[in-house]
Amino acid sequence: MIGAGQLARMTHQAAIALGQSLRVLAERPDDPAALVCADVRAGAATDLAALREFARGCAAVTFDHEQVPQENLRALVDAGVTVHPHPDALLHAQDKLVMRRRLEALATVPRFAEIREAGDVDRFGAEHGWPVVLKAVRGGYDGRGVWMLDGPAPAQVDELLAAGTPLMAEESVPMRRELAALVARSPYGQAAAWPVVETVQEDGQCVQVLAPAPGLPEDVAVEAQELALRIASELGVTGLLAVELFERTDGVLVVNELAMRPHNSGHWTIEGSRTSQFEQHVRAVLDYPLGATAPTAPAVVMANVLGAVQPPAMSVDERLHHLFARFPDVKVHLYGKAERPARKVGHVTALGTDMAEVRRRAGLAAAWLSTAEWPDGWSPHAGGAIEREVQRV
Amino acid sequence: MIGAGQLARMTHQAAIALGQSLRVLAERPDDPAALVCADVRAGAATDLAALREFARGCAAVTFDHEQVPQENLRALVDAGVTVHPHPDALLHAQDKLVMRRRLEALATVPRFAEIREAGDVDRFGAEHGWPVVLKAVRGGYDGRGVWMLDGPAPAQVDELLAAGTPLMAEESVPMRRELAALVARSPYGQAAAWPVVETVQEDGQCVQVLAPAPGLPEDVAVEAQELALRIASELGVTGLLAVELFERTDGVLVVNELAMRPHNSGHWTIEGSRTSQFEQHVRAVLDYPLGATAPTAPAVVMANVLGAVQPPAMSVDERLHHLFARFPDVKVHLYGKAERPARKVGHVTALGTDMAEVRRRAGLAAAWLSTAEWPDGWSPHAGGAIEREVQRV
Repeated sequence: MIGAGQLARMTHQAAIALGQSLRVLAERPDDPAALVCADVRAGAATDLAALREFARGCAAVTFDHEQVPQENLRALVDAGVTVHPHPDALLHAQDKLVMRRRLEALATVPRFAEIREAGDVDRFGAEHGWPVVLKAVRGGYDGRGVWMLDGPAPAQVDELLAAGTPLMAEESVPMRRELAALVARSPYGQAAAWPVVETVQEDGQCVQVLAPAPGLPEDVAVEAQELALRIASELGVTGLLAVELFERTDGVLVVNELAMRPHNSGHWTIEGSRTSQFEQHVRAVLDYPLGATAPTAPAVVMANVLGAVQPPAMSVDERLHHLFARFPDVKVHLYGKAERPARKVGHVTALGTDMAEVRRRAGLAAAWLSTAEWPDGWSPHAGGAIEREVQRV
Repeated sequence: MIGAGQLARMTHQAAIALGQSLRVLAERPDDPAALVCADVRAGAATDLAALREFARGCAAVTFDHEQVPQENLRALVDAGVTVHPHPDALLHAQDKLVMRRRLEALATVPRFAEIREAGDVDRFGAEHGWPVVLKAVRGGYDGRGVWMLDGPAPAQVDELLAAGTPLMAEESVPMRRELAALVARSPYGQAAAWPVVETVQEDGQCVQVLAPAPGLPEDVAVEAQELALRIASELGVTGLLAVELFERTDGVLVVNELAMRPHNSGHWTIEGSRTSQFEQHVRAVLDYPLGATAPTAPAVVMANVLGAVQPPAMSVDERLHHLFARFPDVKVHLYGKAERPARKVGHVTALGTDMAEVRRRAGLAAAWLSTAEWPDGWSPHAGGAIEREVQRV
C-alpha cells in the first residue's frame, strides 16, 4: 500500500487475518501504519525510484491516498506491476474536472465549469446564481481546497490561479444532508455494496457516520447502491469505491466526490458489517471473492476523534481510562498520531438498536477523547463510574 | 509479549486499535507475530539477558505461552518490570501439580497423585481404577504430555522419569463433554466473563468451540463463570484466565487445565463478542477498565484449521479463493505458519442463529482449508460457485 496513514494502519489489521503482512510506503517513520507494520519502506509517492523499489515483489500495489502522480503509476503499470485501482480509474478520484465530465453521462452532478480566469467565475455565478463553490481540481480533502464565494472575488481567484492551482466552479447544491454509498469491485468483476450511510459534516469535515442512513427510503437506498455499482463498473474501479452524495432538497441524489480506497465513511464496517471495508479492499485487490456486507447491528455510528483547538492537559491514555469505564461497549480506534486542531487522530464506533441512543453514545465518546470534557449537564458518573464490579453474560 | 505465535499475532491486531504497537520476543524470524509486528526482538524466554533487554521500556510484559522459567520471571519482577500475570499466579498454569493442590480447596478436581516411581501409578490405579491418566507436570499441551494407561506400564513410566519428566497420575473422569470458562481480571481487580463454551476435542486436540455451550443450563453456566472468576481472584490472575472444564456424567463441573493468556477457546470472541479476548487481555495488562463481553450473535462456532496428514497440492491461496466463493460470511484467520500434520495453522469463525447450521458451516470451511476436499456427498457448488453476482444489502 502506497501511503502509511490510518487507512493503511487499519488495512494491515485486516490483512493479518488473511495470512498477509502489508508492505507500506511511508514518508515518515512515525506515520500511523509505519508504527505497526513489519514491512515498511521509506519514500514518497512522488519519487518514482522509491516506488519501483517498493513495488518489487508485491502481489499487487494499492493506495491509502490519491496523491500519487499519474506518470508514476503508469510507469509502474508499464513495468508489469499489478496496480489496483488502475491509473485510468484512479484519475477520476484525483481530478475533479475529469470526474465531473465523465459522470455527467452516468449520474446527476452539480452544474460545473472549468475556471481559467477570474471572469469565468463571475460568468458562472451570473448564470447559475450565487454562492458559487470554487474548488481546486486536484488535491483538496476535508474541506481544504474548497471555497464558498458569495459573489465575485477576482483577487482571490487570480491569486490561486497564479499559484498554479487548477480551479473549477460548481453550483451550491440545496440539500437535506450528505450520504455515502460504499462498494467494492474485484478485477474478476464481482461487486458488493454496503448499506448507504449518512455522513454528518461540520466545517467541511465529516464528524459522524450513521449506518444505515436514518429514514432513507428503501428505493432511494437501492438507487444509491446501483449508482455506485454502475460508476465502479463503468470506470473500471478495482478495490473500494466511496461515492459521496448530496441528498438534494427535491430528493434527487447528486454525486459530490469519489474516493477509490478505504474511506472514512466506511470505518463503521469494522464492527458493523460482517466484512469490513479494509478486509474487502484487500480481498478485491488480491482478486479474492468478496465478503458478505450484511450489517451486524440495526444501528451503527462512527464518530471521528478530532484534535481539539486546545489540546487537553489530560493524556490520551488517561482519557481512554475514563472512556472505557463509562462506555465498556464503545469500540475505540486510535491512529498513533500527534494531536493538532481538527486532525483526525482516531475514531469510535457504537452499535445498538436505537439510532438516536447509539449516536448519543458515539458523540459523547468522541467528544470526550477529543477534549477531555463531558458536555454540560451530562454526568459521566451516572451509573458508570469504575467499580470493582463483575460483568457476567 | 513474550512469544510470537498466533496468540501474539492476534493480540497485535487488537493492540493497534488501542493506539499501541506490540513488542514481541520471537525465537524465529518467521514466527506468526514476527511476520506482522513492527517491534520484534529476537530471543528465547529461557535467556534472561534477552528477556531483560526485551523488557526495557515496556509498560508491561505478558505472555503468549507458559514456557517461561519462573526464575527468569522473578528476576524481571525484582528488577522492577511490570509482569502480568505475576509469576506467583502463572505458576498454576505452568505446574499441574501445584495447580491441583491449590484448586482442591476452590473447585472439584480429578483425584490425583504425584508419581515418583512406577509403583506409584500401580497403587493409584488399584485405588481409583483404570484407566489412569498419566501427565507430565510441566510442558504438555494439545494432547502432548498426556498418556492414557489401561493398566500398569512400569517400563514407560520409568523411562519418562529417567528422562527427567516430572509426572502425576489422575483419574479418568467420566464425562459428557468439555467446556471452557474464559474470564479477564485487571490489576485494579475488575473482572469480566464471557459466555461459557463447549470445546469439541479430537485426538486430544480442540477442533471446534461452540459459543454458547449448547443446552447448558443457565445455573450451570453461571456456576462455571463464578468458578473461573473465583480462581482468577484467589490466584491473583491479571489478564486472561481460561478454565478448561469437564462436564462429568453426573453434571458436576471438574477443573481440567488453566491457561493465563488468550486461549484457543476464546478465538470466537474476535467476531462473536463486543470485546475480543485479545483486546481484553491488552486492556487488563495495561490496567484499563475492561470491555463489554456481550455476544454479537446467538450462535458462534470457531473451528481450527489443522495441517492435513497429507498436505494438499492446492495452495492455501487457492483454497482461500474457493472458500470465500462458497462462504462469503465465514471469517478466516491464517497465522502465516507452514503446514504440518495436526498443526494449528489458522481458524475460521461462523456466526448465525441456529447452532447446528453455524457448526456445519464452520466445520466445512475448516475441513476445506485443511484438506482442499469437500466431504463426500456435499457439493460446494450448490448455490455458491463464483459468479459475477452483485451482493446488495
